[in-house]
Amino acid sequence: MNAGTLFSKPVFSFLRLGRLIVFVLACILLTFSGAQAQPDPLPSWNDTAAKKAIIAFVQTTTDKSNPNYVAPEARIATFDQDGTTWVEQPMYPTMLYCLERVRVLAKEKPELAGVEPFKSVLAEGPKALADISLKDLETLYAATLTGMSVDEFNREVNAWLETTKDPRFGRRYTELVYQPMLEVMQYLRANGYKTYFVTGGGQDFVRAYAERVYGIPPEQVVGTMDAVKFGYDAAGKPVLTKEPKLLLNDVEEGKPEGIHLLIGRRPYAAFGNSTGDKQMLEYTQAGEGMRLMVLVHHDDDKREYAYDAQSKIGTFSDALMNEAKQKGWLVISMKNDWKRIFPWEQ
Amino acid sequence: MNAGTLFSKPVFSFLRLGRLIVFVLACILLTFSGAQAQPDPLPSWNDTAAKKAIIAFVQTTTDKSNPNYVAPEARIATFDQDGTTWVEQPMYPTMLYCLERVRVLAKEKPELAGVEPFKSVLAEGPKALADISLKDLETLYAATLTGMSVDEFNREVNAWLETTKDPRFGRRYTELVYQPMLEVMQYLRANGYKTYFVTGGGQDFVRAYAERVYGIPPEQVVGTMDAVKFGYDAAGKPVLTKEPKLLLNDVEEGKPEGIHLLIGRRPYAAFGNSTGDKQMLEYTQAGEGMRLMVLVHHDDDKREYAYDAQSKIGTFSDALMNEAKQKGWLVISMKNDWKRIFPWEQ
Repeated sequence: MNAGTLFSKPVFSFLRLGRLIVFVLACILLTFSGAQAQPDPLPSWNDTAAKKAIIAFVQTTTDKSNPNYVAPEARIATFDQDGTTWVEQPMYPTMLYCLERVRVLAKEKPELAGVEPFKSVLAEGPKALADISLKDLETLYAATLTGMSVDEFNREVNAWLETTKDPRFGRRYTELVYQPMLEVMQYLRANGYKTYFVTGGGQDFVRAYAERVYGIPPEQVVGTMDAVKFGYDAAGKPVLTKEPKLLLNDVEEGKPEGIHLLIGRRPYAAFGNSTGDKQMLEYTQAGEGMRLMVLVHHDDDKREYAYDAQSKIGTFSDALMNEAKQKGWLVISMKNDWKRIFPWEQ
Repeated sequence: MNAGTLFSKPVFSFLRLGRLIVFVLACILLTFSGAQAQPDPLPSWNDTAAKKAIIAFVQTTTDKSNPNYVAPEARIATFDQDGTTWVEQPMYPTMLYCLERVRVLAKEKPELAGVEPFKSVLAEGPKALADISLKDLETLYAATLTGMSVDEFNREVNAWLETTKDPRFGRRYTELVYQPMLEVMQYLRANGYKTYFVTGGGQDFVRAYAERVYGIPPEQVVGTMDAVKFGYDAAGKPVLTKEPKLLLNDVEEGKPEGIHLLIGRRPYAAFGNSTGDKQMLEYTQAGEGMRLMVLVHHDDDKREYAYDAQSKIGTFSDALMNEAKQKGWLVISMKNDWKRIFPWEQ
């Protein structure tokens, strides 16, 4: 039987349909084979050992045939923020915001200018914050970051971030993020990791922009945490007010503690840059299987900053460097391992 | 030109290929149209208004063309546990565990039998727990639920859950979960909602089994939260120890407070069963757009329990019922709305 003669009209359309579909299938196959040869997940990284170690960790822990395979639900990666994913010099942006609020407050209540720690902070600015005690810091926080509703606080932080620029770079703080670390976060997420902030910065402060700037949703921000109080406004509408009561000081020991309280799982990868991250990295490493512990080392004063043991901000002590070497933590040289630092650089 | 004559051999195979592909496409189309007529997502619910309201909420908030559409990242649903997703009578399992630990402790330290609140609890059992003050409860918690590592605590809880049975039902507590609520959780998750516990129970206690019993991972359990302390064991290994320091009492006002601290987003749906859930439901409703506020009413003494204003456990007061009516909250009648209560029922 000659199908062509029998169904001459339909054959032609079937023929065209067949060709079209073969073409579409070929395209799909090409797409899939193209997916095998993936584009570089870390294009802003130089092709050094650091980049290779990060890629090896992700490939190993997501390879079902590997003994170090990690089930998708256990894939947790934690990131310090200040100095690890954005610039922390000359002062943490979260504290610059606090300083700004002290100035606003002092206009409303001029008597504060005579009372410590407000007096020093108003007179010396960021310099006074570098040496501040936890007690004085709590006083500043209580006066400037509490008493308003959580929604109001969110609006105030975003208004400040929108209008304030870093003097050296002439950019908003939310632009002073490290492109190589954004790529690591995206790469981890593309491989089923949940990325969390575990930061000394105020939890509500970081939540105000973490989703749009880093792709980290509010429920994945662990930070220094003050209590909130539930109540009702004049119209009877429920409202949450920020309270001057510290629940978690999310630095040093506070980082693994905060990880347990808010996440309840041990991370498989942890990224930090200072002595404040040491305990988080130790806690991460104490888990079974393959773990990735990373320290960002600020050794690039041309493109960013170079600082370590002498710095009051983001201390990278000799002891920390020794521990990193001894325990096999990955130390990132911003100068040598990063092709570019900021998203807006060419 | 007659394509059939010109390419008679290829035409035949193209024709067959074309037919095959048309067949495959038809199958795909059938599959998709089949997906429209989905299987019942809530098979253990009777076909009453309650079931319809839950389905309408999910369909509306996930329909892109609806003004009440909720973006996937904002889809948060919170569940009380005791009395909402498992049996809380005659006493919350989390407190029965505490009582069990008091008995273990009293064997090690017989002098406790003479000291309140241990004395009453040892003499009266669960009855003494129904009236206990927050202060006495903290004393019990401190003595029984703190001082060990978080891993040790997890093991102890699971060992107890494995070996302890509820006297009335002759089942483990983890079997006394409400099948209709498991279905609601699954249905919400299948529609992109993140399901959270927001429970008065101990956060670490609930985390010990929430993933395997309810499909709720540790990072989505908000509960009554005690501090943990980071340190090192004798071998220098990092360890987190449970501390007798209450950070969050996750009942009443504590529920919306805990939601803010641990999630940082307002839920779109909230499920509770008692006055302890009132503020969580109010907070949920105060958000914009469509919200679902649900109270499970225990009115089925044949299959489970019937209790309300008189009960010391899971109080469902007249005031709460009035508020629910006035504000349009959905009140579930276990007797009328649920076809079956437990997964093991036929």
